[in-house]
Amino acid sequence: MSENKRAEGMNYAPKGQFDPVVKPGEFVFAAVGLDHGHIGGQCNGLIEAGATLKYIYDPDPAKLDRYLAMYPQAKRAGSEEEVLNDPEIALVASANIASERCALGLRAMEAGKHYFTDKAPLTTLEQLEAAKAMVAKTGKKYAVYYSERLHSEAAVYAEQLIADGAIGKVVQTMGLGPHRLSAGVRPDWFFKREQYGGILCDIGSHQIEQFLFYTGAKDATITATNIENYNNPQYPGLDDFGDCTLVGDNGTTGYFRVDWFTPDGLSTWGDGRTFILGTDGYIELRKYVDLGRKQGGGHVYMSNNQGEFYFDIEGKVGFPFFGQLILDCINGTENAMTQEHAFKAAELSVKAQMLAEEAKGITRKF
Amino acid sequence: MSENKRAEGMNYAPKGQFDPVVKPGEFVFAAVGLDHGHIGGQCNGLIEAGATLKYIYDPDPAKLDRYLAMYPQAKRAGSEEEVLNDPEIALVASANIASERCALGLRAMEAGKHYFTDKAPLTTLEQLEAAKAMVAKTGKKYAVYYSERLHSEAAVYAEQLIADGAIGKVVQTMGLGPHRLSAGVRPDWFFKREQYGGILCDIGSHQIEQFLFYTGAKDATITATNIENYNNPQYPGLDDFGDCTLVGDNGTTGYFRVDWFTPDGLSTWGDGRTFILGTDGYIELRKYVDLGRKQGGGHVYMSNNQGEFYFDIEGKVGFPFFGQLILDCINGTENAMTQEHAFKAAELSVKAQMLAEEAKGITRKF
Repeated sequence: MSENKRAEGMNYAPKGQFDPVVKPGEFVFAAVGLDHGHIGGQCNGLIEAGATLKYIYDPDPAKLDRYLAMYPQAKRAGSEEEVLNDPEIALVASANIASERCALGLRAMEAGKHYFTDKAPLTTLEQLEAAKAMVAKTGKKYAVYYSERLHSEAAVYAEQLIADGAIGKVVQTMGLGPHRLSAGVRPDWFFKREQYGGILCDIGSHQIEQFLFYTGAKDATITATNIENYNNPQYPGLDDFGDCTLVGDNGTTGYFRVDWFTPDGLSTWGDGRTFILGTDGYIELRKYVDLGRKQGGGHVYMSNNQGEFYFDIEGKVGFPFFGQLILDCINGTENAMTQEHAFKAAELSVKAQMLAEEAKGITRKF
Repeated sequence: MSENKRAEGMNYAPKGQFDPVVKPGEFVFAAVGLDHGHIGGQCNGLIEAGATLKYIYDPDPAKLDRYLAMYPQAKRAGSEEEVLNDPEIALVASANIASERCALGLRAMEAGKHYFTDKAPLTTLEQLEAAKAMVAKTGKKYAVYYSERLHSEAAVYAEQLIADGAIGKVVQTMGLGPHRLSAGVRPDWFFKREQYGGILCDIGSHQIEQFLFYTGAKDATITATNIENYNNPQYPGLDDFGDCTLVGDNGTTGYFRVDWFTPDGLSTWGDGRTFILGTDGYIELRKYVDLGRKQGGGHVYMSNNQGEFYFDIEGKVGFPFFGQLILDCINGTENAMTQEHAFKAAELSVKAQMLAEEAKGITRKF
């Protein structure tokens, strides 16, 4: 398997339609911290929604060069301070090391910027408290790129189907979040729980966010949680498997499994699925591949009282989150995602991981 | 929806190839207790494997007439005693009311017959102890029709793929067991936990059996379990939803969800799935329908290091369990299923339900 193929998952950065909500220069942002390839998805989404990428910065010149080549409209910033001191910058987007995301966010918000971080947005409850305090202090947003919903047309279409009443009242979600490990091309921090946060905090955060979103739960109890290293003893800090069961404050239930077992023969980095069970039907999202049938994403399957349905919606519904986020920043609204929801998903992800580590007797070394 | 369509799930009785392991009259059995339509599947499987159906008995003449019409080779027995007193009968098959299955089995085994019951094979731990004691006393089998594996060619093919090493070592299973409620054509006992055993004991037993089977676990810890009545308050004894997380004694994990939310528009009674995660790949079984793609069962999807695969195996692999069961009864072997495995699945199903009822404060009225 080629290095490009191996890096596909970690550099997942879908492109959508150009559908600007602002004029050029009306909403200016910077990308700071290029440790994870998701920054490409964050930038693409914002740029397609009309935002202007002014700066890119990372202390590693090689990473910086790579992203400057991808976004030739952007300038190389000489330092983080250069970005934070520029009054034109409204938002800082980042996909730096997970455990450092909060600290950067605090600095950005303190400097008067909105913050848009890759998931997981933070890795400890102490960071969460600091982030909440900074939101309260500055009124700025600490937005999170939960890409497995926000940057998946299948996931966006599911939202529309549910809003139309296609499956009745949602009672449960199930998520499968398999990913290709590609250990050889991963940075060191990917294998250190202190830095990546553990599997339930990292890729599990996508799943918990989707559970809260589709069920409408505002909070949840974690009823079971587990992490394992089934097949990668050479990386003792890696959880190659995790799962979790939740009961929402509205009585709905959720389960998800995340893992690093995507086999080399799969045509993409992971066969991500979401099952949404309603009282009058159910939806299945095959987000990135229709296994054994069709490469590419955007596969929405549904059955309800009217029949069985397949919707191939790739290229058809787009990614409304990014334009909404820009307008939320400008207008002080919360149409893209509420701050409470973004933080609740993060809180539950951290707690799920903490419970699982405690059960395994794992002590982190900071 | 027609009554026939509504009754499809509860009368699920697949037909396979005639592939006898004994000559006519060499292995003679009776069907006693026709409360659930699974008895048709049990009879079909045994007859296709060469067994001779001599009697059918049920205290309800209407049920008896219906099955005698389906199996004209069988005689109407005048009583249970007539069957149990006939030395030619080697095995009694039954799908009577779940809470009465064990009592019938004890009588049959005491009379020197093997017993082959529909799942759930029993509904309390007291019944389990009595069944174990009777097996020890008589040396007879208390076999169980876990149809969602034994009578699914997809499930049989998955066993072969795993045995061939196609996905490496199995580390987790996930099962979805949705069923169509069809409340209007269900008997009273279907809505009484004391009789049907609760959802995790009833249709959950299929799932726990599959978890133990595919992972090779001999025992498991139930780490979370839940039952709900989300949308059927008119049936307070019904659990219309249940789920459960398990950790096997070999470190593997399992999750399943069972529910009664199959919508009327689905082309079959339930979109049953099994996901089997291995260290080198994974298998997905779409047992009864390929949602939105193809009616009928036998859909096996797989990805491993060699690629993505779809196998349509309907009519191709058959149901080896029934012939093996007959030979096991004759030879005293355990090739079809060990007694320990059949009982362990039952035990965990009862325990999962007990834990869930306890958490909900449900007290049964016997």
